[in-house]
Amino acid sequence: MADTKVAIILGSDSDWEVMERCYRELESFGVAAEVEIKSAHRTPDALRDYVRSAEGRGIRVFIAGAGLAAALPGAVAAHTTWPVIGVPLVSGALHGVDSLLSMVQMPPGVPVATVAVGAVGARNGALLAVQILALADPELQKRLKIFKRNQAETVDRKSQALQERLNRG
Amino acid sequence: MADTKVAIILGSDSDWEVMERCYRELESFGVAAEVEIKSAHRTPDALRDYVRSAEGRGIRVFIAGAGLAAALPGAVAAHTTWPVIGVPLVSGALHGVDSLLSMVQMPPGVPVATVAVGAVGARNGALLAVQILALADPELQKRLKIFKRNQAETVDRKSQALQERLNRG
Amino acid sequence: MADTKVAIILGSDSDWEVMERCYRELESFGVAAEVEIKSAHRTPDALRDYVRSAEGRGIRVFIAGAGLAAALPGAVAAHTTWPVIGVPLVSGALHGVDSLLSMVQMPPGVPVATVAVGAVGARNGALLAVQILALADPELQKRLKIFKRNQAETVDRKSQALQERLNRG
Amino acid sequence: MADTKVAIILGSDSDWEVMERCYRELESFGVAAEVEIKSAHRTPDALRDYVRSAEGRGIRVFIAGAGLAAALPGAVAAHTTWPVIGVPLVSGALHGVDSLLSMVQMPPGVPVATVAVGAVGARNGALLAVQILALADPELQKRLKIFKRNQAETVDRKSQALQERLNRG
Amino acid sequence: MADTKVAIILGSDSDWEVMERCYRELESFGVAAEVEIKSAHRTPDALRDYVRSAEGRGIRVFIAGAGLAAALPGAVAAHTTWPVIGVPLVSGALHGVDSLLSMVQMPPGVPVATVAVGAVGARNGALLAVQILALADPELQKRLKIFKRNQAETVDRKSQALQERLNRG
Amino acid sequence: MADTKVAIILGSDSDWEVMERCYRELESFGVAAEVEIKSAHRTPDALRDYVRSAEGRGIRVFIAGAGLAAALPGAVAAHTTWPVIGVPLVSGALHGVDSLLSMVQMPPGVPVATVAVGAVGARNGALLAVQILALADPELQKRLKIFKRNQAETVDRKSQALQERLNRG
Amino acid sequence: MADTKVAIILGSDSDWEVMERCYRELESFGVAAEVEIKSAHRTPDALRDYVRSAEGRGIRVFIAGAGLAAALPGAVAAHTTWPVIGVPLVSGALHGVDSLLSMVQMPPGVPVATVAVGAVGARNGALLAVQILALADPELQKRLKIFKRNQAETVDRKSQALQERLNRG
Amino acid sequence: MADTKVAIILGSDSDWEVMERCYRELESFGVAAEVEIKSAHRTPDALRDYVRSAEGRGIRVFIAGAGLAAALPGAVAAHTTWPVIGVPLVSGALHGVDSLLSMVQMPPGVPVATVAVGAVGARNGALLAVQILALADPELQKRLKIFKRNQAETVDRKSQALQERLNRG
Repeated sequence: MADTKVAIILGSDSDWEVMERCYRELESFGVAAEVEIKSAHRTPDALRDYVRSAEGRGIRVFIAGAGLAAALPGAVAAHTTWPVIGVPLVSGALHGVDSLLSMVQMPPGVPVATVAVGAVGARNGALLAVQILALADPELQKRLKIFKRNQAETVDRKSQALQERLNRG
Repeated sequence: MADTKVAIILGSDSDWEVMERCYRELESFGVAAEVEIKSAHRTPDALRDYVRSAEGRGIRVFIAGAGLAAALPGAVAAHTTWPVIGVPLVSGALHGVDSLLSMVQMPPGVPVATVAVGAVGARNGALLAVQILALADPELQKRLKIFKRNQAETVDRKSQALQERLNRG
Repeated sequence: MADTKVAIILGSDSDWEVMERCYRELESFGVAAEVEIKSAHRTPDALRDYVRSAEGRGIRVFIAGAGLAAALPGAVAAHTTWPVIGVPLVSGALHGVDSLLSMVQMPPGVPVATVAVGAVGARNGALLAVQILALADPELQKRLKIFKRNQAETVDRKSQALQERLNRG
Repeated sequence: MADTKVAIILGSDSDWEVMERCYRELESFGVAAEVEIKSAHRTPDALRDYVRSAEGRGIRVFIAGAGLAAALPGAVAAHTTWPVIGVPLVSGALHGVDSLLSMVQMPPGVPVATVAVGAVGARNGALLAVQILALADPELQKRLKIFKRNQAETVDRKSQALQERLNRG
Repeated sequence: MADTKVAIILGSDSDWEVMERCYRELESFGVAAEVEIKSAHRTPDALRDYVRSAEGRGIRVFIAGAGLAAALPGAVAAHTTWPVIGVPLVSGALHGVDSLLSMVQMPPGVPVATVAVGAVGARNGALLAVQILALADPELQKRLKIFKRNQAETVDRKSQALQERLNRG
Repeated sequence: MADTKVAIILGSDSDWEVMERCYRELESFGVAAEVEIKSAHRTPDALRDYVRSAEGRGIRVFIAGAGLAAALPGAVAAHTTWPVIGVPLVSGALHGVDSLLSMVQMPPGVPVATVAVGAVGARNGALLAVQILALADPELQKRLKIFKRNQAETVDRKSQALQERLNRG
Repeated sequence: MADTKVAIILGSDSDWEVMERCYRELESFGVAAEVEIKSAHRTPDALRDYVRSAEGRGIRVFIAGAGLAAALPGAVAAHTTWPVIGVPLVSGALHGVDSLLSMVQMPPGVPVATVAVGAVGARNGALLAVQILALADPELQKRLKIFKRNQAETVDRKSQALQERLNRG
Repeated sequence: MADTKVAIILGSDSDWEVMERCYRELESFGVAAEVEIKSAHRTPDALRDYVRSAEGRGIRVFIAGAGLAAALPGAVAAHTTWPVIGVPLVSGALHGVDSLLSMVQMPPGVPVATVAVGAVGARNGALLAVQILALADPELQKRLKIFKRNQAETVDRKSQALQERLNRG
């Protein structure tokens, strides 16, 4: 896992606050990621060049987070055949319904793997990327299994803690 | 008005059925239009080249109709500084709420002039283009005034026809 | 550009807080604007007289911002054949879904060029007006191209700044 | 009840199909109505003149039915202090959510009494008008009470019919 | 106007905060109102008795404000033939979309005159009640005309104030 | 199970087409049901008397199906302390979003157990009633377990049938 | 009522803040409840084992609260034939519309009794559970009747308090 | 590619009509798929056993299509660490908004890669699966690039055909 296989692309630097969770979640699996701010609408050529050259650098999964008319993941998908994960962010008045529909309703032939709106999606986008990379990386698959087990144990521990609190009155 | 100043772009040939109204409405004002099928997601390079070269051919207004995650007008706006009109079309299960939000909620710096969903928007997109061209074309401004007057007269005539029908019982 | 070609109309003085961005954005392009508070529902006659007389004063584009059942841009469009841009504002419980639909779903024959809900739309409404005026003003077209280039460079700079921050740990 | 006190206004002649139910419901109460097609956007001056002159002819309640960005009842309310009833109609892709919000979300100071979307609203708009007129017309109040009683009896009769059907197996 | 002709009914005492605007608006027209907290779901019998007896006390218009599954105005309308105005209030997670639809979508035969969600609706509900009462009260009709004129003048004054502020820079 | 413990109430006879599935599903469990058409808005007194007297006749669960501003199940719950199941039906333009929110968003103190919109809900309402009755009826509990097993077997059988179809090409 | 018949299941410990109201409401009726944190997605096996074994411990009603894609109550219902009550919680950007639809739209054969979104639903879920248990527990039925009476009296008291406040000016 | 790496799971056999497109799209890439009908709610144990055993048989990507409260892909994801793709289907009154939100809004730790509602999503789900498998299969990557090129050429061909049609008049 020495080389970087994941690219995280933000539509705007204000998206970093939420998308940093995506970066940190990947990090916790030992998966490095390139981070770029590239806009489908403001820097279409830079975005295109970046996506086209990414394959050569070894990028195999793209994660794009954006708000409003969130064209970013679709614009990435237009220039690559590698999987593109879309994280709809909340921006402006319509709380992410706009970005969710702009990402998930991609036309036939150009899928975007869309995850939950906002911070939950930022983390889940990272996990989905790890699941995809694990197809060719048995070590990552092991880590995912440990993660899943830990997650279950955390729920159990919290359940017991709550019951003890209730029993103590 | 010998030269073509308006480009109509469709995301898919199935959009022609509705967008033909846009073309015919322009025609009724004596405004010729180029028509292209170009997809933000399937032919991003062809779209880019087309939009970039359109200015040189004299195109001054773009009208883009698309359904689903309707990135098309935004992708046009990314490559031009001329006005872009977006017509959200109905496609699939969400009856155009997806295409409406994907068009109207453009990020700061890259506006798309969005009109009504579907056939009404196809016609109104044409009228908006004519209104814009009329800034530099007094003849078009005259035609718009005649159109407006005729429209009002049509309403009056229909009102009288309905009243006569009711009076006859 | 000595003379004023744009009119900004607000439905209520509480809309100024958001719509001032529209005014300032125009100003940054050297485009002066008249500002009026006129209500489709509370001052229909004053609105009508204002819109009808605006053409004579040289107004060529109207920008109308309103919340709730935002009839204002449509009411402007009823009295003019020049382009009308609608900015849906957030007011009350329904966060601008009401004003968005009240603007964008105009009937055939009377288009309103609708932009994004709220502050983003206020700025984009200004830019759309500049794009439209640029049809008859090559100087404005130049400024739009500079604006577009600057916008792209800002994204690049922010992308580099974020990467440096990440590299420093 | 010799004189006409109710005006039914349609935004378009295609609205008559649904709004005729409004007219017939009024008729069933012996309440005559003027019917006009007047558009807030296509014939704003004719609408204004009609509403302003209606008071002099004795009109006391307005019922306005419209689809899309249904500005009509609000535009009527802008020119009168008599009650205005809005019937949101289904037109285009958004099934009347657009017309509902465009009517019900009127700004402070200019109410529109909004009823249900479509055919149900067309009938209920008529009933609401009769309820309002009954404030100054004891005979109408009597008819409303009979109507209410009959309505209840119809439900009872249908309930018994259904039960008999079920009992017969 | 010595006698009370309007009843304001709240579904819960927490609704008073918003509905007090309704009461005060009526007061500003010299229209007294009874205020009652009665719940369609928690005190159906008291509500019924109250509505049935209200006619005898001279009540001619009901205004009912409620949130959530806002059955209150419909439950009032079930027991009276006088006009019932519904004010949808915001309560809980769905910001009044629930109360709006629960009020406006009344079945055929039992209309509720629905106004805007929340505080705007509370004021407009009062104005609608005054418009209705004015059918039988020329003095109220005069006050409505003064109100309308004042409202227009306020808009004009605010428009001038804003322009002066802008001119001063 | 000789005596009838379930009451199915419809807001209108047009609801029978869908609600008959509820009746037949109960029948398939050997559970008899009373069926009544009673309207919260058109026959409030008959509804009240019916619900109040139902307890004496042994009714222990109510199932109410209604469309539009579907106040029926809430109106039933206002008069009883036995469980009330609400089935939101599709009627008019808003495809059951109105009836769903009118049922599920009941205020504190008066729950309605809401199930899916339309035909699916009609069947599931019956099953929920059987699940509730099974608390005091071991025979019904047995039948529910058999139903659950059969349901699973049906899915398995259909899965195999589909696979065979695919294998045959 | 010595033995515990109700299980409250939370999808996450952050849901306790709202769901504690459910627990306390049950307590106020003398109904004890088990509380467990079990996730449909993170601990599916523990959830299954818990639900399957609950019947043996005497559990007769399940109440499951969850946010987002709130699969929890459906996952409980998949493993039991006892009634399952779903409380949709607000989590993330879509204010509980996601959890509401994920719960109420259960497929045929597997009902979930869904109550209101958020805190109101947490309390009403408890009341619905008490109503269900009361089928086999006359003492609980008595308490529900007292609760209903008290609730009505509280409304009356608040109505009088408000009127006194208004009368004092 | 002799061995089967993709499992398509349907919640109901009525979903096959749409999901067959998913199967055929995979086939067109030479990717075989297992097809199973397994319900999260009706056959939870069979679903669990199927998903748990699938890894051993070589399955690396799951595609789950379901309507209503579409818990299926989430229930699959609960039992595996391989990527799960969700296809929201239209079923019942809410046209897939219910299934979309039930899939995309998965809680942290358990992502579902959600694609478009209905038939478009069925095809795009297949393509996403192929993109994922291509990480470990250079031959698939080649086919995706050919597919992308063909797709672009089809758009170009259709654009030319439309222009020829228009030129011929």
